[in-house]
Amino acid sequence: MAKNIHIHAHQCHLTWDNSIPPVARIQSGDIVSFDCVDASNSQINKESTSDAIKNFNFSLLDQVKGPIYVEDAQPGDVLEVEFLKIKTADWGWTGLIPGFGLLHEEFPNPVLKIWKLEGESAWFKEGIHIPLRPFCGECGVARGQKGAFSTIPPYRTGGNIDTKYNVEGTKLLLPIECEGGLFSLGDGHAAQGDGEVAGTAIETPVSVQVRLSVLKNMPHVNSPQICIPSQANARVSSRGYYTILGIADTLLDATKNAVRDMIRYLGDIKGLTREEAYMLCSVAVDLRITQVVDMPNYCVRAFLPLDIFVE
Amino acid sequence: MAKNIHIHAHQCHLTWDNSIPPVARIQSGDIVSFDCVDASNSQINKESTSDAIKNFNFSLLDQVKGPIYVEDAQPGDVLEVEFLKIKTADWGWTGLIPGFGLLHEEFPNPVLKIWKLEGESAWFKEGIHIPLRPFCGECGVARGQKGAFSTIPPYRTGGNIDTKYNVEGTKLLLPIECEGGLFSLGDGHAAQGDGEVAGTAIETPVSVQVRLSVLKNMPHVNSPQICIPSQANARVSSRGYYTILGIADTLLDATKNAVRDMIRYLGDIKGLTREEAYMLCSVAVDLRITQVVDMPNYCVRAFLPLDIFVE
Repeated sequence: MAKNIHIHAHQCHLTWDNSIPPVARIQSGDIVSFDCVDASNSQINKESTSDAIKNFNFSLLDQVKGPIYVEDAQPGDVLEVEFLKIKTADWGWTGLIPGFGLLHEEFPNPVLKIWKLEGESAWFKEGIHIPLRPFCGECGVARGQKGAFSTIPPYRTGGNIDTKYNVEGTKLLLPIECEGGLFSLGDGHAAQGDGEVAGTAIETPVSVQVRLSVLKNMPHVNSPQICIPSQANARVSSRGYYTILGIADTLLDATKNAVRDMIRYLGDIKGLTREEAYMLCSVAVDLRITQVVDMPNYCVRAFLPLDIFVE
Repeated sequence: MAKNIHIHAHQCHLTWDNSIPPVARIQSGDIVSFDCVDASNSQINKESTSDAIKNFNFSLLDQVKGPIYVEDAQPGDVLEVEFLKIKTADWGWTGLIPGFGLLHEEFPNPVLKIWKLEGESAWFKEGIHIPLRPFCGECGVARGQKGAFSTIPPYRTGGNIDTKYNVEGTKLLLPIECEGGLFSLGDGHAAQGDGEVAGTAIETPVSVQVRLSVLKNMPHVNSPQICIPSQANARVSSRGYYTILGIADTLLDATKNAVRDMIRYLGDIKGLTREEAYMLCSVAVDLRITQVVDMPNYCVRAFLPLDIFVE
């Protein structure tokens, strides 16, 4: 019978480093539950103001819980992470952090928004509500390379992949580089747009339950891959989308153009401030690459779901 | 009462150039029908082989029909293009063109696939069928700048935006830079993945009917923007997706990594050749940017809809 292991919030680490001793050893197929603080490592709470962001200790951000040693996991194998349950706290936050995010040069000031999370959606402000689909921004196994690697960038082995499709019901596949896999997760998000353009989602403490299984002979899993069953599809807006094309001679500039024009649209048409609009993009607007071949210009399209606006 | 104008296949041009005389003058709100040859400009037909690609006259590619002069359209206005009807021919093609496409260095040989188009979906090969959602890859107005600009890259004023969401029922908004707008379209596609990674979709002749309307006082329309009503949403796979993450320190390399790993997946798991897999990506796999902030690494995810595979 599969064991059920519980990992507490203090059982965490701040870098990916395969020399960190495991906090638990399990068999393939066992279930593990995690209590996770938010990405700020409790530097923000329900009562915080933007001063909390001004005073951030950046070295404490994006800690992850673990690592979990899975018996029989060998380099070259694959770790399947099945998300069984993900539950947020009753609050969350979104912030603009100076020096961080796609348009950080245009948004120099710290901004903090605290969300109340209850039910199926959360109010951004009057007239705008965001459907909640919680997931973990950080899910990964240790890198094979010796040393301590920041948890901020994602790697081939996962980590801060910020992929909003890792909701309940999906299975994430990670290529294993170390004996035992050494799996960890964290960085709870209640909702996020594809791109997470401002650098933060609806950040929140979460409790998460996953089943960890070792799979053999899957050499095509060379990076984090996800099986999304239809019931866990990213939701589709019931009232369609307003979409804006960014065009430029690099994908990055095309992305920036699309987001800039979306911020302008949200200001001109929906009456948001620039800071509100940028945060709304980060938690609800999706970025899709619509062409990468008609040189010298690339196209990235920003999708605003229209059902977040109360009619 | 709105007029109904018909534009024939020979009423075409090969560059965006505001000195090209209009083929028709209409009032705002009139309906225009277009007969369009395929993007190859009839260099490919139902009986063609890959020799047709080897012998391409590139200067004939991506011609567009028009231009249409819309009375009262002034620089700074917006042209709304409402797609009323789009009908493909009974055949189409997908090609690998040497020197063109995201991974052209890895696919040096010309390849041509001819499709039979009838009903709701088209067979890629036994066991794999692609749902058809026809649209025009090229839709644009003339640029304000004097001169002749290639129809291959897209511009702020539209053109080769290759946006698969321009299906029947959507409205495309284009910023007008010239008196009369000078609207043209072409490059019929029966289906395409977001990204069009190999450089071709299911290319096909199309007949298209649009309503063209001039909108005033919309300064936020600074690039091609699309209103997608819910019924015209890009379809959602009924059996979910297999998704693969590309990670790299540029968005372009992240995109290439995602597509390379998807080609490998389609080979290892679905038994496709590399050329088949690359073409299937171009017509059916979607690219989404999942994070652009966790530096130094970007994440692009390739989405393979699983309902294209017969169970």
